Amino acid sequence: MNGAQALLRSLVDGGVDVCFANPGTSEMHFVAALDDVPEMRAVLSLFEGTVTGAADGYGRMADRPAATLLHLGPGMANGLANLHNARRAHTPVVNVIGDHARYHKGFDAPLESDIDALTGWLHGWSRTSKASAEVGADAAAAIAAAMQPPGQLANLVLPADVSWADGGVVGEQVEPVAAQPVEDGRVAEIAKIVRSGEPVVLLLGHGTTREQGLVAASRIAAATGVKLFAETFPARIERGAGLPAIERLGYLAEQVQWQLSDAKHLVLVGAKSPVSFFAYPGKASELVPDGCQVHVLSVLGEDGTGALENLADLVAGDARPVLQEASRPGLPSGALTPQNWTEVIGALLPEGAIVSDEANTSGLMIPMTTVGAPRHDVLTLTGGAIGQGLPVAVGAAVAAPDRPVVCLQADGSAMYTASALWTMAREGLDVTTVLLNNHAYAILRMELSRVGAEAAGPKAQQLLDLSGPDLDFVSMSNGMGVPATRATTAEELADQFAKALAEPGPHLIEAMVPPLL
Amino acid sequence: MNGAQALLRSLVDGGVDVCFANPGTSEMHFVAALDDVPEMRAVLSLFEGTVTGAADGYGRMADRPAATLLHLGPGMANGLANLHNARRAHTPVVNVIGDHARYHKGFDAPLESDIDALTGWLHGWSRTSKASAEVGADAAAAIAAAMQPPGQLANLVLPADVSWADGGVVGEQVEPVAAQPVEDGRVAEIAKIVRSGEPVVLLLGHGTTREQGLVAASRIAAATGVKLFAETFPARIERGAGLPAIERLGYLAEQVQWQLSDAKHLVLVGAKSPVSFFAYPGKASELVPDGCQVHVLSVLGEDGTGALENLADLVAGDARPVLQEASRPGLPSGALTPQNWTEVIGALLPEGAIVSDEANTSGLMIPMTTVGAPRHDVLTLTGGAIGQGLPVAVGAAVAAPDRPVVCLQADGSAMYTASALWTMAREGLDVTTVLLNNHAYAILRMELSRVGAEAAGPKAQQLLDLSGPDLDFVSMSNGMGVPATRATTAEELADQFAKALAEPGPHLIEAMVPPLL
Repeated sequence: MNGAQALLRSLVDGGVDVCFANPGTSEMHFVAALDDVPEMRAVLSLFEGTVTGAADGYGRMADRPAATLLHLGPGMANGLANLHNARRAHTPVVNVIGDHARYHKGFDAPLESDIDALTGWLHGWSRTSKASAEVGADAAAAIAAAMQPPGQLANLVLPADVSWADGGVVGEQVEPVAAQPVEDGRVAEIAKIVRSGEPVVLLLGHGTTREQGLVAASRIAAATGVKLFAETFPARIERGAGLPAIERLGYLAEQVQWQLSDAKHLVLVGAKSPVSFFAYPGKASELVPDGCQVHVLSVLGEDGTGALENLADLVAGDARPVLQEASRPGLPSGALTPQNWTEVIGALLPEGAIVSDEANTSGLMIPMTTVGAPRHDVLTLTGGAIGQGLPVAVGAAVAAPDRPVVCLQADGSAMYTASALWTMAREGLDVTTVLLNNHAYAILRMELSRVGAEAAGPKAQQLLDLSGPDLDFVSMSNGMGVPATRATTAEELADQFAKALAEPGPHLIEAMVPPLL
Repeated sequence: MNGAQALLRSLVDGGVDVCFANPGTSEMHFVAALDDVPEMRAVLSLFEGTVTGAADGYGRMADRPAATLLHLGPGMANGLANLHNARRAHTPVVNVIGDHARYHKGFDAPLESDIDALTGWLHGWSRTSKASAEVGADAAAAIAAAMQPPGQLANLVLPADVSWADGGVVGEQVEPVAAQPVEDGRVAEIAKIVRSGEPVVLLLGHGTTREQGLVAASRIAAATGVKLFAETFPARIERGAGLPAIERLGYLAEQVQWQLSDAKHLVLVGAKSPVSFFAYPGKASELVPDGCQVHVLSVLGEDGTGALENLADLVAGDARPVLQEASRPGLPSGALTPQNWTEVIGALLPEGAIVSDEANTSGLMIPMTTVGAPRHDVLTLTGGAIGQGLPVAVGAAVAAPDRPVVCLQADGSAMYTASALWTMAREGLDVTTVLLNNHAYAILRMELSRVGAEAAGPKAQQLLDLSGPDLDFVSMSNGMGVPATRATTAEELADQFAKALAEPGPHLIEAMVPPLL
């Protein structure tokens, strides 16, 4: 058994049985070993941004890591932006980064680079495997590290000679660490605050935006009148009919300041104290209102959901959660608008859908129009690095093959990782992509004036404009094997969306939605 | 004048008048300032890999830097792979990396990251601008750093508040450092070696593969019988009829060992001692034959071309360089093969062409079939990070608008940065892309057996296979605004290639060339 075979066997033994890959020469023994470990599914992507974004989407839905296979420093570099998003999402991922044979590194061959600098940028767990006898144990350690609450990136650098050398040993699985329970004393302290009669906001962060946490939070709110918000960009939020509907904090600082304006106490549950996404001249970075005290019920790595349940036991008595009633918008008609396309989605979103949401400005109304749709999960752009939507949809579809995946994808961001469409086609993934084509970096048009640079002239405007030539996503999608149609009216979108959902496999609908601004 | 205006004015004053850009919110003041500095041309790309690859292509042809504009750490991360290639090419580039306002960084907003880790990975010059009064001087320092022989990446981090604050001061230009002349003593020592009568190889590296260096080297060879080779992946090599034809070292270790087999002395001229691109089990990393002594005429940063001329003065007397005669292959016919498509290129390559070569395995015969074509430049994949061909073609076309650019592009690599086609269309660049579609990572099929993993089964083969679905580059190209055709025979390729060259603006020809292996 060589190192690569031991590595793959150890990954599979540890429950990591999907590997998103874009290999190169230094990874050929890993690739060859795939046929020796039939339980491992290998999914090829044509660019590492898709590899890593897919691993993120997979981990968010599976609650366990996928592996990635990346080609030395430059291959890893291509995957960094979506790993940044995965880091912000606290997604468990095991990155296997192939490297030159150890004896070859000193020769500074063309692809040589300082991989440690890149793994360092990601702030995760990192190790370079030193021997084929150790790589199995390294894999087990990587899985345990990835699963360490709240979840993180584990980077395992695999030198080619470690991969090809005989003497591989399958690693013993490492018992994963559980989330730390929150002390009763802290829960009791927070209980006092929520019962104080003063205006309190509970901000739900990582891990608490799934049914169990939402229900506990809703009971607390029903009993005490506290306001509930979810963090702006949850890694995964469960919502829809039958679940408590929790509003997310807004993207714009002004929205958040308005949402929190009355609060005297802000209680963080696995969330960070809200800050502005960007700095703006003369505007605050911190968004907690003056005179509002910040308290912590749980930090990342603690069991925030359990803490919410304990808090509910203390303060909510028999209070019932407020559950969203089923309700859908009517099907709209006429030319597509930034509003009516979201009504189409709300009217037709299928039961159990997973929504990969990178609709950006076009998606402003989506939370409102889908709130009463059948129960679904939403995966959001946690780290702000665009190009996540399509890859995350790939990973979600691999993790949950029985659930329909809906990818709401802005045009500018789509161009970062468009080749994810090919992987959807190759794997026959049931992903319906609604591609919002507004011919602009619309968010930057808004930001250009928000930063006080509104006097911008034609050269500046040209840099925010995606027309000239217009991108034709129907052609591009067909070129990558995903059948595509174009919708210019709400009726066409509804018709095409319903058909795409009814057919298995990937589809893309280019929705010609004018910019919001 | 704010910081952004001072920065742009300082760049333009220093001869940096092209900026390849993919901006975000933190760069909006830079974007707004573009209209205040009309000399600066801003070229939008839809992905940072194109931004940085274009800056590489530009610098290779212009011999001065373009600027890039990148959006914080994640935007820079997306551009790293092609910056790795630019670093290996010693291309002068000034990267402007927008960052959060300094007072905002401590809040760990979603896009916050350790940019210094990424600039460190690139091994170039780096500075974070601290004040609007300093950013002009920082820009001048960055230009001088980028131009420092042999050329390098200069990374200037631009906090948003430095960009937007008033008090900008235009920087005084910094006198660039010249390449160090090589001492006469060293030249005289090498002269003794080339006159020793023993077999000598001169290996031409960075900066010496342009006319002046090639002519001097050819005179030396004509007079003394030394063999000449260029390094495997020159940043830029001039060739064709009327120039000395210098063979490049091969990509495969076995080729290099064969090319150097007789040498008793290897003289490096701005080149590194040859090493294997990858390590292979049981094969050597160093490719210098046993018993061959390695000597250095010039190192990077020294004037290798001047050293060659001085050496020629010592040893070549009146010897004339051996200049390649004009000769083209005849136009072939029949179904496309890995050989005959290169004959079409050789038969039709226009005078003064710039060839961006990322044809990989499909391009094996290109050096032979174009050797007697009209004079042209070839830009190669210096760092091995795929996805360079299309972006480098963009930059070369911007740098040399009066010259035809021919991009020879493999399919797998094309998918890394395909959106470069859109930039070609928007800017009306005269680039003819020949897209070699062999439905495979053909190089990896070869490498899979070369690393000793030839027993690979169907799962492994599937990871090297780009069919199922087949990529349709005609559709994708049309979708990005570049008119495209498909050629399956040599006649079709010749016809389409000639037409594309005759028309201004970008074209793509998808050449259905079977894999070499």
